[in-house]
Amino acid sequence: MHEKGIITLNEVSKERLITMISKKMQDYVQNSSVIRAMFEEGKRLAKIHGAENVFDFSLGNPNVEPPEEVKNTILEIMNAEAPMNVHGYMNNSGYEEVREAVAKSINKKFGTDFDQNNILMTVGAGGGLNVIFKTLLDPGDEVITFAPFFGEYRSYVANYDGILVIVSPNTVDFQPNLIEFKERITPKTKAVIINSPNNPTGVIYSEETLIMLASIMREKQQEFGTDIYLVSDEPYRELAYDAMEVPYPTKYYENTIIGYSFSKSLSLPGERIGYLVIPREAADYENIISAANIANRILGFVNAPSLFQRVIARCLDAKVDIDTYNRNRELLYNGLVSYGYECIKPEGAFYMFVKAPMESDVEFCALAKSKNILIVPGTSFGCPGYVRIAYCVAYDTIKKALPGFKALIDELKTV
Amino acid sequence: MHEKGIITLNEVSKERLITMISKKMQDYVQNSSVIRAMFEEGKRLAKIHGAENVFDFSLGNPNVEPPEEVKNTILEIMNAEAPMNVHGYMNNSGYEEVREAVAKSINKKFGTDFDQNNILMTVGAGGGLNVIFKTLLDPGDEVITFAPFFGEYRSYVANYDGILVIVSPNTVDFQPNLIEFKERITPKTKAVIINSPNNPTGVIYSEETLIMLASIMREKQQEFGTDIYLVSDEPYRELAYDAMEVPYPTKYYENTIIGYSFSKSLSLPGERIGYLVIPREAADYENIISAANIANRILGFVNAPSLFQRVIARCLDAKVDIDTYNRNRELLYNGLVSYGYECIKPEGAFYMFVKAPMESDVEFCALAKSKNILIVPGTSFGCPGYVRIAYCVAYDTIKKALPGFKALIDELKTV
Repeated sequence: MHEKGIITLNEVSKERLITMISKKMQDYVQNSSVIRAMFEEGKRLAKIHGAENVFDFSLGNPNVEPPEEVKNTILEIMNAEAPMNVHGYMNNSGYEEVREAVAKSINKKFGTDFDQNNILMTVGAGGGLNVIFKTLLDPGDEVITFAPFFGEYRSYVANYDGILVIVSPNTVDFQPNLIEFKERITPKTKAVIINSPNNPTGVIYSEETLIMLASIMREKQQEFGTDIYLVSDEPYRELAYDAMEVPYPTKYYENTIIGYSFSKSLSLPGERIGYLVIPREAADYENIISAANIANRILGFVNAPSLFQRVIARCLDAKVDIDTYNRNRELLYNGLVSYGYECIKPEGAFYMFVKAPMESDVEFCALAKSKNILIVPGTSFGCPGYVRIAYCVAYDTIKKALPGFKALIDELKTV
Repeated sequence: MHEKGIITLNEVSKERLITMISKKMQDYVQNSSVIRAMFEEGKRLAKIHGAENVFDFSLGNPNVEPPEEVKNTILEIMNAEAPMNVHGYMNNSGYEEVREAVAKSINKKFGTDFDQNNILMTVGAGGGLNVIFKTLLDPGDEVITFAPFFGEYRSYVANYDGILVIVSPNTVDFQPNLIEFKERITPKTKAVIINSPNNPTGVIYSEETLIMLASIMREKQQEFGTDIYLVSDEPYRELAYDAMEVPYPTKYYENTIIGYSFSKSLSLPGERIGYLVIPREAADYENIISAANIANRILGFVNAPSLFQRVIARCLDAKVDIDTYNRNRELLYNGLVSYGYECIKPEGAFYMFVKAPMESDVEFCALAKSKNILIVPGTSFGCPGYVRIAYCVAYDTIKKALPGFKALIDELKTV
C-alpha cells in the first residue's frame, strides 16, 4: 500500500541495467579524473600508513596560508558593513566598485587602461573559462592549446561542443611549439588557450614567445578573414620566482581575454573567486561582454561569491608568502637533479615536470606509489614520458620523500 | 611600428561587422533577460526621480536581513579555525561533515534517511540545476515544466540541448495542470521540473498534487520503460506562511532530485550556496552521483564556496524573519484586491501573481512604469495576461506604491 503515496525503500525497482546519465557524462564517469583519484588514494594510504608517511604531490592545493589581510578584511567587512550589502545580489558581472578596483590594480601593475566595463567577476578561473567558451564557441569550433596543458581544458571546450586541438610539446624548454602551432590554425580556430606560469611545467611563457604567438595569430586572422581569441589562463601569475616578470598578454595581442583567479595568489581555492578581463580592443567587444555577462547567469554561477568579491577588492596588493614555495622548489629540484632526474627548473607556479626515468610515465607513477609517493602522469597533461610533482606541500614532506625518489631511480638503473 | 610587439588602441581594426559570439548566445544577447533589464531600469529611474519615489517590484532580491547567526558564525569560524581548513579545496561534492550535517537536518525535518552520500553542495540552486541537467540530458531529451515557471529553466535546459516542454497554466488555483501533463509525457521525457513554493505565483504544490504527479509519472515510466526524474527546485521552501507545510517530494516519488538554496532562507543570494539531494532510491543512483560530482567540477564550479559551506552547516536551524514578508503580503494583497485586482493569495515565497486588468500583460507593465512601478510580465513565466509583483521590498515601498496601483486600474476602468 502506498499510504498517501508515501514510498519505502524496499518497494523501489532496482533491476534496471542501462544507465540514465547523459552519453557525454558516461565517458567522464568511466575515465574519472586521474588527479582527483590520486587525491582519494592519498587519503586511503594515509589511513593505512599514517599521514606523515604518505607523500602526496598529486594536487595543486596551496599549502601556504592566505595573507593576514584576508582574515582582517573579512572581520572588518562583517563588523562594519550592512549584511544586505555584503551577501545580496548585484549585477551578474559583479559589484561595480570591485570591478573598478580590479581594473585600477591591473592598470597600475601593467600600464594598461582598463575600467570596470572590462572586468567580469567569476566563480574562479574555472568559472571564467567556461563563461568565455560558452560565449565564443559554436559546435565544431576549434580551440588550440599547447602540450603539456591543464587537463580540464578538454572538458571546458567539450562542454560547448568545441574541439580541443593539441600542439605537441617542445620538451627542450617547454615554451610553446610555434612552428607546429602555425600549421594547426584553420578557419575553424576560434581561440587559443595558454597558461603561464604553466601547469604542469612551471615555465613562464617569455615575451618573445608572446610576440611571435601574436604575430602568427595576426597573420592567420588576415589569411582566413577570422578573429582568433587568445585566452590566457592565469591562476599562477603572482607565483613567479627570482623576480621573473610574467608578461601581460593584452599588451601583445588585441584579441586577448584574461582569466584570473585568486585561488593561488591569496590561497583561497575553495572560495571560487576570480575575474575575466575583456579589453575594448577585442573584436566584437560589446557583444562579448554582454554575452559573457549572460553566460555567467545562465550557466548557474549567477555571480561571483559576494563577500569574497569585497574581500579581494581590498587585498589586491596582498599575496601569499612565495618564499615558502621557493624553498620547496630549491630542495626538490636540487635533490632530484643530484639523483640523476632530468627536469627543467620551474620559474613559477608550484609544479615540477620531471622526465620519467623509464618509458611509461603511468608505470612510473604506479612504481612511485609503492614508495608512498603520489605524482601524476604527464599523459594527463598531453605529454607522456613525464610526471608532474606538485610541491605545494610541507617542506618536511619533500625532505622525507627525497630518499624514495632516489631509491626509485637507483632501482631502475640497476635493472 | 610594433615596438617589441606592444600594440596601441588606435592600431586596432574595428571594421568587422559580423559578430564573434556563438549562435546560441546571439539570441540571448538580443532578448536579454526582461527581469534584469527591469533591475537596471529601476536604478535609472531612481537616479531621475529619487530612489524613494521608484517602486521596484521586479527582482527576487531578499530585503530581510540574514539571521544574526550568520554573522556570528562567520566571525566564530574566522577567529577559531585554521584558514587552510576554511578556504582550501575539498571534495568536489563539498566537505563531508557539511554534507552529513545537511543530511541529518533534512532527516530530522522530514523523516527521511539521507547521509552525506546523498548530498552534493552546489553554487546555489542555479548551479545545482545546471549540474543535474548536465548529468541527465542528452541532446533532444525533454524536460517538462508547468506554467507559470521560473524563466531561467529555459536556459538551464537549453545549455545541454534539451527541450523544455511547457504545460499550460491552470489559472484557477495555479496547481499544475495534470491532465495536460499526462498527455505531454513522451518516451523522450527525461525529467520534470517543479518549483514550490512557486515563483511567480507563491502557490505551494499540495500533497494531493504530488501524489497524483507521482502516480502519472510512474504509470508513464511503466508504459515507456523509461525513468523520469522529478527535479524539485526549492529555494523558497522555508518561506511558507500561516504554518503551511511544503511536502517533501522524495517521500512521494522515488526518482526525485531536490535542488535547494540558502539564498532566500538565510538571505544570502550573492554567496551562491545550495545543495542537491540525490536519494539512493533514484534509478542509477551510483552513476548519477558520480556524474553530478564530475559535472560540478567540469562546469567550472569546482565546489560550492568553502567558507559558506561551513557557515550554513552551523545555521541549518536558522531562518530569516518571515513575518516581515508576511506583513508585506497582507498589505499588498488586501490593497490590490480592494481596488478590484484579481489575484490568488500567495502561500509562500515573496511573489504575487496578479491578473493584468487589460489584455496585454506587457502593455500593463509599461503602463505601470509610468507610475514608477516596476513589475514583470507573466509572459516571462510562460503565462501571459498576468504580472509578477516581487514584494521583498520595504513595507513603506508597498504603502507608497498602492495609490499608483489603484490609479492604474481606475484609469483602465474609465477607458
